[in-house]
Amino acid sequence: MRLEKINLLEKFEQLPGGNYAVGVVAKMNDYEFKIVRFKGDFVWHRHPETDETFILLEGTLVMNFRDRTVEVHAGEMIVVPKGVEHKPSSGNGYKALLIEPAGVLNTGDIQGEMTLQRIEWV
Amino acid sequence: MRLEKINLLEKFEQLPGGNYAVGVVAKMNDYEFKIVRFKGDFVWHRHPETDETFILLEGTLVMNFRDRTVEVHAGEMIVVPKGVEHKPSSGNGYKALLIEPAGVLNTGDIQGEMTLQRIEWV
Repeated sequence: MRLEKINLLEKFEQLPGGNYAVGVVAKMNDYEFKIVRFKGDFVWHRHPETDETFILLEGTLVMNFRDRTVEVHAGEMIVVPKGVEHKPSSGNGYKALLIEPAGVLNTGDIQGEMTLQRIEWV
Repeated sequence: MRLEKINLLEKFEQLPGGNYAVGVVAKMNDYEFKIVRFKGDFVWHRHPETDETFILLEGTLVMNFRDRTVEVHAGEMIVVPKGVEHKPSSGNGYKALLIEPAGVLNTGDIQGEMTLQRIEWV
């Protein structure tokens, strides 16, 4: 039982460097809350089994869908529906809170060099 | 399918007035994201079936547990574990994002004047 509060921006100080870093900060039932720092172009992928939520904490996430693009800024959130192809991008980088069931692969149905086999708690 | 982004603080403008107001802003699988504005003392209750997450957007939530008190400020989050008695309080008020499975009663195992039988989308 973990009754501590979590300061989201402070948790980012525990992530490794680079353009892409992810860490688990909390669990709610069988869902995980992950902090994500990202800059650049991710890969097109979909999560066939689940919706996925991004809450922006800093910067701007450009969420590309096949038929539109949505710019998500700090203080905004977006739910990517189950099975919908998407590609997160960010020219200047963003920090976000990601919420999805534990065990969901970061690159969904695609496996490649961006795929993380394991995400540590921070 | 809802691919729009959601600006959390702007959504509060659509809530009714008073010391306690709640509205649903998004759904992820069978979970709901609700915005909550609260000032005062809530009631002691527990959710026997689920964890419950609060992400603070403005102000301070004083989360009372039977054996401790945790002050949660803007930019911080807390997961209240399933079955654990808690009483949210706030002297100056807070705005938060609440995440839990759809259909969870706001007062958990207690029914009284604070109980909301229905929460609208905003």
